[in-house]
Amino acid sequence: MVKRVRLSVAYDGTNYCGFQIQQNGPTIEEELNRHLSELLEENIKVIGASRTDSGVHALCNIVVFDTSSRIPAEKISYAMNQRLPEDIRIRKSEEVELSFHPRKRKSMKTYEYRILNKEFPIPTRRLYTHFAYEHFKIHLMKEAAAYLVGEHDFKSFCSSGSEIDSTIRTIYMLDVNENDGEISIQVSGNGFLYNMVRIIAGTLMEVGKGNMTPDEMGKILERKDRSAAGPTAPAKGLTLLSYEFFD
Amino acid sequence: MVKRVRLSVAYDGTNYCGFQIQQNGPTIEEELNRHLSELLEENIKVIGASRTDSGVHALCNIVVFDTSSRIPAEKISYAMNQRLPEDIRIRKSEEVELSFHPRKRKSMKTYEYRILNKEFPIPTRRLYTHFAYEHFKIHLMKEAAAYLVGEHDFKSFCSSGSEIDSTIRTIYMLDVNENDGEISIQVSGNGFLYNMVRIIAGTLMEVGKGNMTPDEMGKILERKDRSAAGPTAPAKGLTLLSYEFFD
Repeated sequence: MVKRVRLSVAYDGTNYCGFQIQQNGPTIEEELNRHLSELLEENIKVIGASRTDSGVHALCNIVVFDTSSRIPAEKISYAMNQRLPEDIRIRKSEEVELSFHPRKRKSMKTYEYRILNKEFPIPTRRLYTHFAYEHFKIHLMKEAAAYLVGEHDFKSFCSSGSEIDSTIRTIYMLDVNENDGEISIQVSGNGFLYNMVRIIAGTLMEVGKGNMTPDEMGKILERKDRSAAGPTAPAKGLTLLSYEFFD
Repeated sequence: MVKRVRLSVAYDGTNYCGFQIQQNGPTIEEELNRHLSELLEENIKVIGASRTDSGVHALCNIVVFDTSSRIPAEKISYAMNQRLPEDIRIRKSEEVELSFHPRKRKSMKTYEYRILNKEFPIPTRRLYTHFAYEHFKIHLMKEAAAYLVGEHDFKSFCSSGSEIDSTIRTIYMLDVNENDGEISIQVSGNGFLYNMVRIIAGTLMEVGKGNMTPDEMGKILERKDRSAAGPTAPAKGLTLLSYEFFD
């Protein structure tokens, strides 16, 4: 009997060339396929919900795969955590309907972009934050963020290189907060274009430094041109926090 | 003209065999000596305040050295941060009196021991916390901690291997707090014996798990025997937070 199993996967992206399998180096997908195939004694190929870039972290990415193994779905997390390298951990494994596809279901993803905003970098936080010593005006970043909430064409916030039908997405929440020298940008949406969160972060940083005004955000959306927005912020500051499926 | 310079040094201890120079691998002291010697074009040997163990981190360790370089003391931090690997950063450099010796001055050091207390480890926090999934009774750990505050003979909380005159130390503050699945043990004192903070953390964890009662802490102190206390908690959970000199 074939069953479909869903895993919630956390990883430190530092040592990986992103989620998706490629020739250049190790990937999360490759590690999952190899260790699942060994554990279940089948050729397993996972389908990932989010193809995070090289250096991006996740607290909760979602993958599914089909197996005819008799190991109960909920035990797979424990068995996999004995095998995986310590920078990848399965937080949960469970059986789902055979029709469940993580990229075809309506969902809300939440990402966090973290900026370490101090005079000097802190070595123990260098892998999970982007360091910037400049003064950021948080209230202007908040004001700018408000322009992006809602359903918009985010073409200006999308790197080229991906083929997609539509660049319209909905952002449900986009918050900027500062606490003890760390700026956190949290964003929830129904989907994100290639590099979208990192371009939003890079653009909000320009606003915070006074290089753009908050009301330019509306014009950037209207332009529908990547060159209108700010730079793509570095990958290591980005973490995929959570995934919620609506149906 | 010779001057004495004091550095405040932050580091990620993951890839080092501790602070103090040794044959087995890279050390913080060796990196500082090499890069300072190159920058100042002299043979520099630093004196460190705290010889942190392999894998232990620091937000603020203190070192001093003497130099006849004409580079102003306060510029050395910036120049060194261009040269050092990114897991070591100088937070401040300043001239101090020639008589200043970081291990001979009265001081208060503060350490933090962090326990990630969740069902599964979080990969992005694995290098800076000790993972434990067991249930900890924080109120019992707080009660136990209170026995150690003040001036005591901490012989039971000292690993052998160090030659010292006295095992009497004063703990000014020892706090246990839990926030969102992370237990933080913070301890301030006038000095710490070899592995003392990690043995305190390991013993408090035994209390939290119900393997010891809080009032056994008094008896452990009285025994003056390492075998009376709990295990030495792993190095990676420990960070030297701060140093204050009283005179």
